[in-house]
Amino acid sequence: MTRQAMALSETQTADAMLRARAQRVVPGGMWGHLNAARLPEGYPQFFASAEGCRVRDVDGREYIDFMCSWGPVLLGHKHPEVQAAAEAQAALGDCLNGPGEVMVELAEDFVAMVPHADWAMFQKNGGDATTACVTIARAGTGRRKVLVAKGSYHGALPWCSPSVAGVTSEDRAHLLHFEYNDIASLQAAVAEAGKDLAAILVTGFRHDIARDLEMPTREFAAAARAVCDATDAALILDEVRTGLRLDVRGSWEALGVRPDLAAWSKAIANGYALAAITGNDKFREAATKVFVTGSFWCGAVAMAAARTTLRIARETDVPSHIRSMGLRLREGLTSLANQHGIAIRQSGPPQMPLMLFDADPEVKKGRAFCSAALRHGAFFHPVHNMFLSSAHQAADIDAALEAASHGFKAVRALS
Amino acid sequence: MTRQAMALSETQTADAMLRARAQRVVPGGMWGHLNAARLPEGYPQFFASAEGCRVRDVDGREYIDFMCSWGPVLLGHKHPEVQAAAEAQAALGDCLNGPGEVMVELAEDFVAMVPHADWAMFQKNGGDATTACVTIARAGTGRRKVLVAKGSYHGALPWCSPSVAGVTSEDRAHLLHFEYNDIASLQAAVAEAGKDLAAILVTGFRHDIARDLEMPTREFAAAARAVCDATDAALILDEVRTGLRLDVRGSWEALGVRPDLAAWSKAIANGYALAAITGNDKFREAATKVFVTGSFWCGAVAMAAARTTLRIARETDVPSHIRSMGLRLREGLTSLANQHGIAIRQSGPPQMPLMLFDADPEVKKGRAFCSAALRHGAFFHPVHNMFLSSAHQAADIDAALEAASHGFKAVRALS
Repeated sequence: MTRQAMALSETQTADAMLRARAQRVVPGGMWGHLNAARLPEGYPQFFASAEGCRVRDVDGREYIDFMCSWGPVLLGHKHPEVQAAAEAQAALGDCLNGPGEVMVELAEDFVAMVPHADWAMFQKNGGDATTACVTIARAGTGRRKVLVAKGSYHGALPWCSPSVAGVTSEDRAHLLHFEYNDIASLQAAVAEAGKDLAAILVTGFRHDIARDLEMPTREFAAAARAVCDATDAALILDEVRTGLRLDVRGSWEALGVRPDLAAWSKAIANGYALAAITGNDKFREAATKVFVTGSFWCGAVAMAAARTTLRIARETDVPSHIRSMGLRLREGLTSLANQHGIAIRQSGPPQMPLMLFDADPEVKKGRAFCSAALRHGAFFHPVHNMFLSSAHQAADIDAALEAASHGFKAVRALS
Repeated sequence: MTRQAMALSETQTADAMLRARAQRVVPGGMWGHLNAARLPEGYPQFFASAEGCRVRDVDGREYIDFMCSWGPVLLGHKHPEVQAAAEAQAALGDCLNGPGEVMVELAEDFVAMVPHADWAMFQKNGGDATTACVTIARAGTGRRKVLVAKGSYHGALPWCSPSVAGVTSEDRAHLLHFEYNDIASLQAAVAEAGKDLAAILVTGFRHDIARDLEMPTREFAAAARAVCDATDAALILDEVRTGLRLDVRGSWEALGVRPDLAAWSKAIANGYALAAITGNDKFREAATKVFVTGSFWCGAVAMAAARTTLRIARETDVPSHIRSMGLRLREGLTSLANQHGIAIRQSGPPQMPLMLFDADPEVKKGRAFCSAALRHGAFFHPVHNMFLSSAHQAADIDAALEAASHGFKAVRALS
C-alpha cells in the first residue's frame, strides 16, 4: 500500500493512459454500471488483479474490496477450492456439443438446497434468468401482465432497462408497477392486470440505487404469495443480487414465502459467468415449452465453480459469516460517525450494506467520504448497496474502518 | 474408439443414466437447441471432454467433431495458446470491479482487424450483441422499425426467439420481414417501415435450419447498404455464427459492403463465453447513450482468450485452412454419394457446410446417415450447418469420410 502515497500525476497513471486509449475504441470509454465516471473522484476504471477481499488497480494500488465485483465474488477473489474445481473441469472441457454431467449435478444441488425448487436451468446473465422467468410465467399462464416494483432493477434488456434510450414503449407494454412493500399498491396493480396477470416479479429486498435499502415485510411477501395463489400467476423472486448472501435456501425463506420461479446469478459461481432459474412443478411444463438457449449456456467450467461455491456457502454458513462481518462494519461506521458528529443512515441486510449521509441530496458527502477512504485503501460505494464476502475477516473490517475514519474527516472538511 | 464396438445396453449407458437424472431436475431433460431429442438416434446428450477436433461423450466414445460446440470452437478444443492466455489472466483475476487492460487491447484488436469498426463493446451471449445493436440503432436514429429476414435466427430472447411460447405480440411489434437475397421484398419492407426505419438486421449468409444454405448475392448486400445510406438507418450484420470463419475482416467484406454495426460471439474466444459489438463512428454517440451491461461483461479471462483467438485467426489465415478442409469434406461426400447412387445437395461456405438428401422431407435419410456415421466416429448434423475448426487436418477429414461411407450405406439400406 506504500504506492498509494506516491503522488502519481493524474495524467501519467496507467489508469489515465488506459482511459485515453479506451475513449478511442470503446463508446464513452466504458459501458453501463462499470463506467467509473459514475464513481467518486479518484476511483480507478481499470483493475489488474485480486485475491481474497483485496483488489488491485492497474497502478498497483490495493483496496479492501466492498463491491466484490458488484456481487459475483461471494467467497473472496480466486478462492482456492473454486479455482481448483474450475481448473479440473477446464482440463477436460468447457463448452462442448452439449452439457456435461456437472449440469445434472448442479441442478440436483439447487433442487436439494432451495425448498421451492423442483428443477433448475442455467444461463449466463442475470437478465437471461429474469427474462426467461417472465417468458416461462407467460407460457404457463397464457397471460401477459407482469407486475414489477417501481425502481427495481431486473437487468439491462429493453423490457427492463433503467434507460429508455433505444427502447420502445411496446418493449414494456405489459409491465404494471407497484411500490415495494406497499400492499395497497400491489393490489391496485393486480386489479389493473385483471384476468391477464401472468406474474409478480420482485427482488429479494428493495435495493434501488441512492435510497435507503428496505427489507420486505412479512405481510408484503405473504400478500404477493396470496395474490399468485388466488390467481394462478407466478411469483418470481429475483435473487440475482441477493442469492446466497441472505439465505442459501432463498431470501424469502425466513419470511415463510416461497416463489414459483427464482432468478439467480452473480454470486452462484463466485465470479464465473453463470445464471440459473429454479422453479416448481407447477411451471415445469411451461419451462419445457419455451425456447431459451445460448451458445455458452452448457459451459461446464462455470458449473463446476458453482457446485463448489454452493457447497461452501452451505457448509460454512457464508450468510452468517458475512452478516457478522457486515454488522462489525456497520457498528464501526456508526461509532466513527458519532465521533465525528456526522449524521448517517445505514440500511439493508448487513451482508449487503449501504451508508447514506443525511442532508446529502447531491451525494457530495458520500463522494468525499468514498474518495478519502479509497485513498486509504477501502473500496466503498456512495449510493449502491455494497457486498461482503467470506474472505472478509475482522482485521479487514477494522482496517477498512481506519480508512473510513479518513472518509469522515473529509466529510467534516466539506462544511 | 474400441469402446464404440461394445454393445452397451441403451439403459445402462452413462448417458442414459444421466438423462434419467436430468429428467427429474431439468425441464424436458435439457433446454433449447442442445436437447438431444432433436438429434438423430444414438446421439449422446452428455459430453465428458474434448481435444482438438475430437469430442468424447460420457460413455467414452470419441467423435471427429463437425459441430465445434455449435460454433464456438474455431481453433480446436483446448487450443494450447488460447488456454495459456486464459490461464495467465485467470492467475491475476477475471471478473473484478471493472475491466482490465485486456478490454482496451481487445477493442483495439477488433478496430484494427475489422474495417468498418471504429469501436467495440463486449457482452456474453450472441443475443446480447444482436439486442444491443438493435437498441443502439434505435437510439441513434430515433426510429423503431427493424427489418429481419424471414426464418433468420438472431437469438432466443422474446423479440427474436423462433418460438412464440411465452412471447407477446408486442415483443415483435416493430419487426418487419423480408426474404433473404430478395431485393424486391427488402424494398417492400423498407417502404412499409417508411420514416420509422431504424435498421436492417441480416446474417452473414442465410443459414436457416433444414434448408439449403445460401450465400448473399453481391446485389442484395449492396441494396441493403444503399437503403441504409439513403435513409440513415443502420445496417447491422449478425456475425454471431459466421464471425472469423468466412473472413476475419467481416463476412461481407469480399462483397464490398460494410455494416454500421456488427454482432459477434461464438468463435471469437474459442469457446470462452464472449460476445462483441463493433460499430462505426456514426453510431458511437448512440452506443454511449444506451444502457447495456451485465454482471460478467468485464470478465478478463474470456477477453484474453479472444485476443489470442483473433491473433491466430489473422496470422494463420484460419478461414483459408478451414475452407480447404471443408472443400475436402465436400468433395469426399460428393464422391461417396455418387458411388452409392444417392442424390445429395451440399450448400453454404465450405467452412460451415450442410449436406441434405434429395427427397427427404422428414429427414429420415439425414438421420440414418448421421446415426451410422456417429457409430463410426464422426459427429455430423442432419439439418443444421456444421462447423470446421483449424484443428481439422486432412487425415481427420478422411477418417470422417470413412465414417460417412457407413452413413451412405445406412441410407441405401432404407429403401
